[in-house]
Amino acid sequence: MGNRYKVTVEYNGTPFFGWQRQEGLDTVQQRLEESVVPLTKESIVFYGSGRTDTGVHAMGQVAHFDIQKDFDCFRLRECMNAHLWSVPIRVLSVEKVPCDFDARFSAVERFYRYKIFNRRVESCLHIDLVGHVMYRLDEEKMNSAAKWLVGKHDFSSFRAAGCQSRSPLKTLNQISVKREGDLIIVETSARSFLYRQVRNMVGSLIQVGCGRWSEQYFCDIFDAKDRTRAGPTASACGLYLVEIRYGLPHLHSNIV
Amino acid sequence: MGNRYKVTVEYNGTPFFGWQRQEGLDTVQQRLEESVVPLTKESIVFYGSGRTDTGVHAMGQVAHFDIQKDFDCFRLRECMNAHLWSVPIRVLSVEKVPCDFDARFSAVERFYRYKIFNRRVESCLHIDLVGHVMYRLDEEKMNSAAKWLVGKHDFSSFRAAGCQSRSPLKTLNQISVKREGDLIIVETSARSFLYRQVRNMVGSLIQVGCGRWSEQYFCDIFDAKDRTRAGPTASACGLYLVEIRYGLPHLHSNIV
Repeated sequence: MGNRYKVTVEYNGTPFFGWQRQEGLDTVQQRLEESVVPLTKESIVFYGSGRTDTGVHAMGQVAHFDIQKDFDCFRLRECMNAHLWSVPIRVLSVEKVPCDFDARFSAVERFYRYKIFNRRVESCLHIDLVGHVMYRLDEEKMNSAAKWLVGKHDFSSFRAAGCQSRSPLKTLNQISVKREGDLIIVETSARSFLYRQVRNMVGSLIQVGCGRWSEQYFCDIFDAKDRTRAGPTASACGLYLVEIRYGLPHLHSNIV
Repeated sequence: MGNRYKVTVEYNGTPFFGWQRQEGLDTVQQRLEESVVPLTKESIVFYGSGRTDTGVHAMGQVAHFDIQKDFDCFRLRECMNAHLWSVPIRVLSVEKVPCDFDARFSAVERFYRYKIFNRRVESCLHIDLVGHVMYRLDEEKMNSAAKWLVGKHDFSSFRAAGCQSRSPLKTLNQISVKREGDLIIVETSARSFLYRQVRNMVGSLIQVGCGRWSEQYFCDIFDAKDRTRAGPTASACGLYLVEIRYGLPHLHSNIV
C-alpha cells in the first residue's frame, strides 16, 4: 500500500490563496503536490495539518502524503526544493512515518505566533510579514487580558463565519504577549482552533493594548459569545503557523 | 541662510542601486530628494552619512539637507512618507539641527549588523534580507577570530578596490558574533569603515565558521594586508546600516 511521508514546510503566504487547493488559484498545497511529480511520476495528494488563509505564513506547517514507490527522504526534499525555487515555499524536512500517521488528526498541539509592528511609521523591512499598529500598545495590559482566554471556553466571540467546527468549545493551552523593541509578539497554542480564532483574539487584544477597551470590557465581550461584539480581525500578514506537535509514536520532528 | 534638517531613514536596499544618486538609476538619495519637493517647492540635495551599496539595507541611515523656508519637522516627515509609500523607504524622524551639523563629518560612530541565515534550506520568509550559508557555522570560533580585528589596524586585507579612503588604517571599536536560532548576527562599529570592509570581514569570518580556516590562518591573512588572500565578499543583502552616532552637540536621535 506504499509509503507514507511527513513533510514540514515553511512558506511566505503573501502570493498564495492560502493552503488549500482551489481550482484556478495559486495555493501552497498545489505547489507542493506539483513539486514531487518530477521524481515520483505519479500524482500525489498532500493532506495538511489544517488550512491557512490567504497571506498567512508558516514556519512549520506539516502535511502527509503517500507514494507507491520507496524514496529516500533527503532526495525527496532536495527535489521538492529544487522545483519550488521560484516560489516562497521551502521543505524543511521529509520523514517516513507509519501509515496511521495523519497530519491533521494525529496533531496534539498547534502553535501560532502573531507579529505586530508597533511604531507610527510602518516597516519597510518587513512588508507583508507583520501586522502594523501605529498607536502605542501596552503589551502588559494585553498579556493580562489574554490570560482570561487560557483553558476550556466557548470561543464564539472569536469565531469567524464559515467555521466548520461542530462546537465553539476549545481549550487554549497558553497565550502570551511580549514586546521585543518595535515588535509585539503574541504566542498561543491549542490542540485546535476555530476558524480565524487567533486573528480575532489578537484583534480584540489590540483594542485593550491601545486603551480603547478595559480588561473588564474584554472579558465581557468574551463572555458574550457574540462575534459582533468583539474587535476587528487582525490582518493575515502578521500570523505564522509555527509548529505542529504530535504525540508518541508521532513525535514532532527535529528540523535539521 | 535657511534651516538645516537631519533625517533618520530606514530602507530595504533590494530594489535600489544603493544610496548615492546616479544618472538614470533608482537610488535612495534620489527618492528622498524627490519626496520633499511637494512641500518645499524647491529642489533639495541630501547629504548622507555615507553610501550604501546596491542591496544593502538601513535601519538608521542619517542625512542632512537645507531648506530656505521653515517647516514643521512632523509635517516634513509625514509628507515624505506619504510620497514614498510605494517604495521601501521610510523616514523615521526629522529634526532641526544647527547649521554646522554634517551627517557625514559630524558622525563619531557607525554601527553595522550582518545577518547570516545558517540552515541547509534557504529562508523563504527573509528573501533578500539575510545572507545564506548552508553549511553549519561555529559562531564561537567566528567570535573568537573576530576579536583580533578590534583596535587600530591596517585593514587592507578587507578593503575593496575603488575605496576612496586615504589610508587603510581604521579603528574598529567592537565586533561580536552570536547565534539566535538559525540566524548568526555579526555586529560591529567604528568611526568609519573602508569600502566593503564589513562584508569582507564577514566573508572571511565565514571561512573560519565553516572550519575551512583556523583562527591562526585568519590572523595570517589579516596581517598580510593583501585583499587577494582574504575570503570572498559576503553578499550585500545581509548587511544593515543600523545607526549613526553623533557627539555633543549633535547627539544621536531618539527615534519615536
